[in-house]
Amino acid sequence: MSVLVVGSIAIDSVETPYGKRKKVLGGSAVYFSVSASFFTTVYPVGVVGTDFPRTYISLLGQRGIDVNGIEIARGKTFRWAGKYGYDLNQAQTISTALNCFRDFSPKLRPEHRRLPYVFLANIDPNLQLMVLKKVAAPRFVACDSMNYWIQHERKALARLLKRVDVFILNDAEARLFSGESNLIKAAKYIFSLGPERVIIKRGDGGSLFVTSGQGCFIAPAYLMEEIKDPTGAGDSFAGGFMGFVSKTGDLSERGLRKAVIYGTVMASFCVQDFGPDNLLKIKPRDVTRRLGDYRRITCF
Amino acid sequence: MSVLVVGSIAIDSVETPYGKRKKVLGGSAVYFSVSASFFTTVYPVGVVGTDFPRTYISLLGQRGIDVNGIEIARGKTFRWAGKYGYDLNQAQTISTALNCFRDFSPKLRPEHRRLPYVFLANIDPNLQLMVLKKVAAPRFVACDSMNYWIQHERKALARLLKRVDVFILNDAEARLFSGESNLIKAAKYIFSLGPERVIIKRGDGGSLFVTSGQGCFIAPAYLMEEIKDPTGAGDSFAGGFMGFVSKTGDLSERGLRKAVIYGTVMASFCVQDFGPDNLLKIKPRDVTRRLGDYRRITCF
Repeated sequence: MSVLVVGSIAIDSVETPYGKRKKVLGGSAVYFSVSASFFTTVYPVGVVGTDFPRTYISLLGQRGIDVNGIEIARGKTFRWAGKYGYDLNQAQTISTALNCFRDFSPKLRPEHRRLPYVFLANIDPNLQLMVLKKVAAPRFVACDSMNYWIQHERKALARLLKRVDVFILNDAEARLFSGESNLIKAAKYIFSLGPERVIIKRGDGGSLFVTSGQGCFIAPAYLMEEIKDPTGAGDSFAGGFMGFVSKTGDLSERGLRKAVIYGTVMASFCVQDFGPDNLLKIKPRDVTRRLGDYRRITCF
Repeated sequence: MSVLVVGSIAIDSVETPYGKRKKVLGGSAVYFSVSASFFTTVYPVGVVGTDFPRTYISLLGQRGIDVNGIEIARGKTFRWAGKYGYDLNQAQTISTALNCFRDFSPKLRPEHRRLPYVFLANIDPNLQLMVLKKVAAPRFVACDSMNYWIQHERKALARLLKRVDVFILNDAEARLFSGESNLIKAAKYIFSLGPERVIIKRGDGGSLFVTSGQGCFIAPAYLMEEIKDPTGAGDSFAGGFMGFVSKTGDLSERGLRKAVIYGTVMASFCVQDFGPDNLLKIKPRDVTRRLGDYRRITCF
């Protein structure tokens, strides 16, 4: 089965202790789509400006991603410039130019409305909710968010969460949203708002998958010696997770845990090079191989 | 087989967001001993002052810990007072009074010199080395250290590491010592100094066990909703690890990974109450049960 993702499509400039890249393909919907494309057909919905390189759209199309939901609007594409120090878990935004993304109003085509799996990447929760309402019969819905929406659109976010199956957010966001420093307590707070499952991402500390009434699953990150750029790791995680879920349709605890591991593996590929370069380079057999490596470094 | 530990024995005062305790039993040798006593006979070597409550020594003795290596010196016992905020990974020292621990010169009895398993808790590396030289035929040696010794006794620490099988330290110490922000690179630096194995503790981020030429093993922490006091978690980890190793004698990768898990489990019991209270309360069946829970929260 296929998956719908609504989110940003961007042109990024990134600097890390390991190098510097200008005008690379970026945005949550892009990382998610490329990652999920290893498992399923992905339908991204997003907007770019007239400056957006056509080659980037072709790159996505070549991966079997349905690019018909990428709207080309007047003006420039959303641009983000950021920098990371040696603590790669912490991005410092240098500049953000929303450009045509400022007035983004997701346009769903008839085929989008019939999709069973939905990922609402980090955009205004009012838009996330609007999109979700247009999907006829979503089987499994995940969403992301960020500190800005938690602080400024809390009510909209709460309305959205009532309809979401799994809320994917990072540890700082979970603490901010719940007012709890303990992550299991933070997850329980989120359960009280609707979602039955929470995934709390902890950067290189891995992730925590908590299911209401079922306890938690802890998935360490796949640690590596060479990490070049952490941008997009979270969305690549979500792409691996939702991609695997939409491939198998298995919503059991066991199935979802396996999906968390695939998310972890896809995030590990993402951070190995700048932008989505490595995700665009690897083959399905690399994913299988790394899953084996991951088992080896976590089994006892 | 039995295990020797040399380290501090202290009287602690601790404050965390979950409460406050004065004059509780503390010190690295204590946490290590109580934790390891679930698996083996432990021989702590340390010093206390004449003010040290005899009941504390009885408590240890009742657990089968050989208390003959606890020297009672003139003056007061080492005292530490500390505080934790909501980030329980970060202790803030309020006061340290070394007292009789200042002139600590570990005295090994004949039975200590014959012990095969040795844990050198965090003390001056010159003393750690002196102790180790007195042990006739150590089969497996682990040591801990801290930022102070890394900065001020680096050469002594390097001399010690030549004779150590596993260096157990936390992530900040590993980064400081190696000058590498990446933890796998930090472990490789440590390999270059002698030890074939490194355990990097990451607080509630779990631990990383790296074996030279064999790659790494990642053990997430056992996350819990209620954590009262993280003091002693690292030494309880080391106690579970070395206790299990000395019980099984299994130095294979598989055996040591299992020991890391027992370390993780013992640390999780430690943090559930102030001081070593919970470690002193639990039964062997609680350890077995939690190992099962740990498998459940990490398996996929």
